[in-house]
Amino acid sequence: MDKTQDSKSRGIRGVVPENHPRRDSILVREKLVEAMENHVVVPQGLIAHGRGECFDYIIGEKTERFAETAIENASALLITAKNPVISVNGNMASLVPAEVVRLSEIIPAKIEVNLFYRDRERELAIKKVLEDHGAKKVLGVDDTSEVIPELFSERRKVSREGIFTADVVLLGMEDGDRTEALVKMGKKVIAIDLNPLSRTSLTANVTIVDNVTRALPLLIKKVEEMKKMKEDEVQKLISNYNNKAVLREAMKFMSERLAQLSLVL
Amino acid sequence: MDKTQDSKSRGIRGVVPENHPRRDSILVREKLVEAMENHVVVPQGLIAHGRGECFDYIIGEKTERFAETAIENASALLITAKNPVISVNGNMASLVPAEVVRLSEIIPAKIEVNLFYRDRERELAIKKVLEDHGAKKVLGVDDTSEVIPELFSERRKVSREGIFTADVVLLGMEDGDRTEALVKMGKKVIAIDLNPLSRTSLTANVTIVDNVTRALPLLIKKVEEMKKMKEDEVQKLISNYNNKAVLREAMKFMSERLAQLSLVL
Repeated sequence: MDKTQDSKSRGIRGVVPENHPRRDSILVREKLVEAMENHVVVPQGLIAHGRGECFDYIIGEKTERFAETAIENASALLITAKNPVISVNGNMASLVPAEVVRLSEIIPAKIEVNLFYRDRERELAIKKVLEDHGAKKVLGVDDTSEVIPELFSERRKVSREGIFTADVVLLGMEDGDRTEALVKMGKKVIAIDLNPLSRTSLTANVTIVDNVTRALPLLIKKVEEMKKMKEDEVQKLISNYNNKAVLREAMKFMSERLAQLSLVL
Repeated sequence: MDKTQDSKSRGIRGVVPENHPRRDSILVREKLVEAMENHVVVPQGLIAHGRGECFDYIIGEKTERFAETAIENASALLITAKNPVISVNGNMASLVPAEVVRLSEIIPAKIEVNLFYRDRERELAIKKVLEDHGAKKVLGVDDTSEVIPELFSERRKVSREGIFTADVVLLGMEDGDRTEALVKMGKKVIAIDLNPLSRTSLTANVTIVDNVTRALPLLIKKVEEMKKMKEDEVQKLISNYNNKAVLREAMKFMSERLAQLSLVL
C-alpha cells in the first residue's frame, strides 16, 4: 500500500471522539488496520478479530474463572515440556509482541512464525516485529523444511527445530484443521481463543477462552509463580485438568450473561 | 493497492479446501476482502463483519422468529413512509447490491451512500457498484450539503433530498452515535444488525437481528406481499410492534442456544 493510503488511515484516528463509548476497542482495531498496512496482519485476520470482539463482549471483556483455570494448566504444561513452542500469527504479533517474547524467555520456549496465509513479505514483517521486541531467535521463516501430515500447501510448513518436534505448542486463534493435525501428531496444544465453540477450542488440549491481550500477561505471571513450585505439584495440576469442563463453564457463563443482559431491556 | 497485491489475494481462494466445514463463510470473507481491494469496504468493515459472523453463528445462521417479526414491521413502515431512504454502507454494497436496488424499486425508496469513513474514492466506488446493479439514482455523493445535528466531521454529511428529510431510514450495521442522532431527529430507524446488544440495535425503532444476506431477500418478499394489503391492516401491524420485546426474544434465543451447544461437550 502506498504512503498516501497509509497516512489516510492514520488520519482516521482523529475522527473517533474522545467520549465514544467504544473508543478503546476502536483504537485496537486501528492498531490491527495499521498492522495490515505493514503486511503483518492479513485482511482475514481483521475478520477473525471481529469474531473475537463479539465473544469478548459477551463474556464482559474480563478474564473469568474458566480462563484462569486454563491459564494455570497451560503454565504447568509449558514449564514441564521438553520442547515448548509459541506459534505466532499476524494478530498475535500485532497485539502482544512484547508479551510473546517475554513468555518465551521465562519458560523458556521457542518462537515460531506460523501463518495460514503465508508469503515471504509477511514472514519477514512478523519476524521483524518480534525481533524489534527483543526476540533473539525466530523460527518458521527460513527453516520450514518439515510439513504437518494431512495438510497441504503453505499452511503445512513448519520448522524441524520448532513445531515439528515440539511436545507442547501454544497458539492464538488458529485454523481448526491445523489444530487437529497438531493434536493427531501427539502434541499437547494450548489455544487462546475467545470462541469456545471453534474447532480449535474443541480440539485443543487446553483452551484459554480469553482475549490474548489479557491472557498473555496472566500466563507470564503464572509461569513465574509456578517456576517456584515442586515438579510433582505441577504434575498434579496437569492430571486434574479437564478441558471439556472448562469449555462447558465458558459457554454456560456466556449463556447466562446474555440472559442477564436481556433483562435490562 | 496495486495489481500484484490484488491477484495475490485472489489466489488465496484456491487454498481453501472444498471440504472445509466453514468454506461458505470463508468465501464470503474473500468477497469482502476483494471489496476492500476495490475501495468499497474499509478495513474496519472487515472487523465489523467478523463481529456479525460470531452472532450469526450463535443464532445458528438461520432467520429466526424475532427477525421475521421485525422484517414484517420494517416492511409496513417502509411502504407507508412519505420519504423512505435506504442508507448504504460498504458492507451492504459488497454483499447485497442487487437486493438494495430491487428493494428501492418496489417500495419505492431512495438510496443514499452513508459512510463512517467517507472519502471521495469510496463514495464513487460504492455508487458505481449500485449503478452496476441497476440503481438509477444514488444520493449521498455529490449532494451532501446537510448535516445531522450533534455529529461532526465527515460522518454527519447527508443529502437534503435523502436522509435529511427522510421519515423512515433503513440501515445496515451502523455506528451507535449516528443511529441515536437520526432517532433524535424524529426519524423511524430500521436497523439490520446481528448484535442485539449494539447501541444501534437498542436505539433503532425496528431491529432486524439477522444476516443482511438473508434479511434483504425476505424484506423484498414481505414488501411485495404487503403492497396488496389494506392501509389500515398495515397500520395495525405498526401499532402492535414492540422492538424491546423482539430484542429480548433474540437475546433469550442466543442464550438458550449457547446453553444447548454446551451440552454436546
